[in-house]
Amino acid sequence: MATKSYAAMKKGGKLEPHSAETGPLSDSDVEVTVSHCGICHSDVHLIDNDWGISSYPLVPGHEVVGSVVAVGKSVNNLKIGQRVGIGWQSASCQQCEWCKEGLENLCASSQPTCVGRAGGFADTVRADARFAFRIPDDLPSAEAAPLLCAGITVFSPLDEYNAGPGTRLGVVSIGGLGHLAVQFGKALGCEVTAFSTSASKRGEATGFGAKKFVDMNNADAMAAAAASQDLILTTASADLPWDALVGALRPQGVLCLLGVPQSQVGIAAFPLIAGNRKVVGSNTGSRATIEKMLAFAAKHRVHPQIQKYPMARVNDAIDTVRDKSVRYRAVLEA
Amino acid sequence: MATKSYAAMKKGGKLEPHSAETGPLSDSDVEVTVSHCGICHSDVHLIDNDWGISSYPLVPGHEVVGSVVAVGKSVNNLKIGQRVGIGWQSASCQQCEWCKEGLENLCASSQPTCVGRAGGFADTVRADARFAFRIPDDLPSAEAAPLLCAGITVFSPLDEYNAGPGTRLGVVSIGGLGHLAVQFGKALGCEVTAFSTSASKRGEATGFGAKKFVDMNNADAMAAAAASQDLILTTASADLPWDALVGALRPQGVLCLLGVPQSQVGIAAFPLIAGNRKVVGSNTGSRATIEKMLAFAAKHRVHPQIQKYPMARVNDAIDTVRDKSVRYRAVLEA
Repeated sequence: MATKSYAAMKKGGKLEPHSAETGPLSDSDVEVTVSHCGICHSDVHLIDNDWGISSYPLVPGHEVVGSVVAVGKSVNNLKIGQRVGIGWQSASCQQCEWCKEGLENLCASSQPTCVGRAGGFADTVRADARFAFRIPDDLPSAEAAPLLCAGITVFSPLDEYNAGPGTRLGVVSIGGLGHLAVQFGKALGCEVTAFSTSASKRGEATGFGAKKFVDMNNADAMAAAAASQDLILTTASADLPWDALVGALRPQGVLCLLGVPQSQVGIAAFPLIAGNRKVVGSNTGSRATIEKMLAFAAKHRVHPQIQKYPMARVNDAIDTVRDKSVRYRAVLEA
Repeated sequence: MATKSYAAMKKGGKLEPHSAETGPLSDSDVEVTVSHCGICHSDVHLIDNDWGISSYPLVPGHEVVGSVVAVGKSVNNLKIGQRVGIGWQSASCQQCEWCKEGLENLCASSQPTCVGRAGGFADTVRADARFAFRIPDDLPSAEAAPLLCAGITVFSPLDEYNAGPGTRLGVVSIGGLGHLAVQFGKALGCEVTAFSTSASKRGEATGFGAKKFVDMNNADAMAAAAASQDLILTTASADLPWDALVGALRPQGVLCLLGVPQSQVGIAAFPLIAGNRKVVGSNTGSRATIEKMLAFAAKHRVHPQIQKYPMARVNDAIDTVRDKSVRYRAVLEA
């Protein structure tokens, strides 16, 4: 068996058609025919080897939706023909304390879907069956795809920090992750404030459910937002005005980093100490949280706003991620 | 009525005998004859106006123990003759959401004992009766004094982050706060690791209850401590190797800042995000937590290690705080 995919052959390279033998299917794995795959900013980081963990040929893609076409001998939770989604993580050790606690996303031996494995910019992809999630019937495949990484990444901290009715939720950067964070927050009953450097996004942010909009380039607007938020999610892969964002937290507030900034995060200690404020990170989510998120998205009609591209136009689609013109998630179709 | 105290007359000045009229006692206040007052590093910061909130004459002192000598008309929780302690906070608005929730230490109108008020380096001090705490009989006054600020500052995050049996607790810097953090942690059942730049403190840290000792100047020792701690309390008023300390956290671990570093805290985002790690601050504690801490200290025989000085030798005592020679808390006696 061979998989046909699109791969970067070198750091920063354009993706090229690629074919690779897949060998026999592991007992615990499933093979999935890809119908859709979202493009995450992390795919661009991997193509560019920004994190020093890439190897080439590199097949990106970790927002996969498709159909099970083969199951390993020991797989008993999935059947051929079922529609499933695969996100950032494709396997874990199953033996460490984190795996035992159902926090496989913290496993030190976690296997990302497109690091050391081949991702979803392909006709088929494989993953441990424990990391292939049934997609609720109400979710169209193209819209479900971005939920597998962008969706869970924003939903997980909302769940961990008990965002709910009355929570003052700030969402920094209205992009692939941010436009979903606003929708999830609104559906959870939060009072959502969108923070953006693009004043032009005010209308769309409001449409997604934001009650307020703060133009981060406007110093007066930022000053007026002081001590206003219980939880702020930063969804940009960019350096941000950290002290102003910590300043926008109410006492006991949480600034949660989701996007990886380019540089070190510099923070004045005094506002943290004086107000028992917190700066935290969060990575994707556990298997249980992924299933909770998918069910919540289906029930509350969280709709990723997507731009579809045929798989063969993958490089055009990636360009819209690189130049930030995509509104708000590019999704490849088989 | 006049209070005799020791006051800094200017930024950074030596303390001088000072006398001030106190006027009538407010209805909600108590007046306390000071028998003991600990010296906190924050007193030095206030004398030096490091935080820009000092006014002169400045009477430091916010680890006060003494006897109630007068009560305001509306005070019904304290009586003349009772032994009480007063810490960093002497009053709050009583009307904001934080006061209503019993988190007066987060009140925006919190009145610190020696900012805009006269502190405990004096024969008498006044505070709102709600912030004067009965001292358990088992605690000697001289030892109780440092608990009112140093003690609550380290106990509060141990309480908030549920430190208990099995918690891997790191304590950075074995000084006035740190030596109490080790004792509280040990008494709570934690496995305590002391992190210090003074290899000479290994023996005493072990005596306070630390199971392990990491010499922070030893790169190999710091590397060996990677991903080892659930909760790390930083008790130094100094810049610290932040990335190494975040690296010493296990997944989901919390780095809690208690001492105020001189410079911005710079942290790489990736370890926070990849491991759901947290960098947080904590300030003193609520009234309820102060009472819980005092009872716990009495029951579990937490003993501040102190050096006593007569009040008249206040400048000698302050010098031991400035040059870090004090082991581990200087306490002034009336």
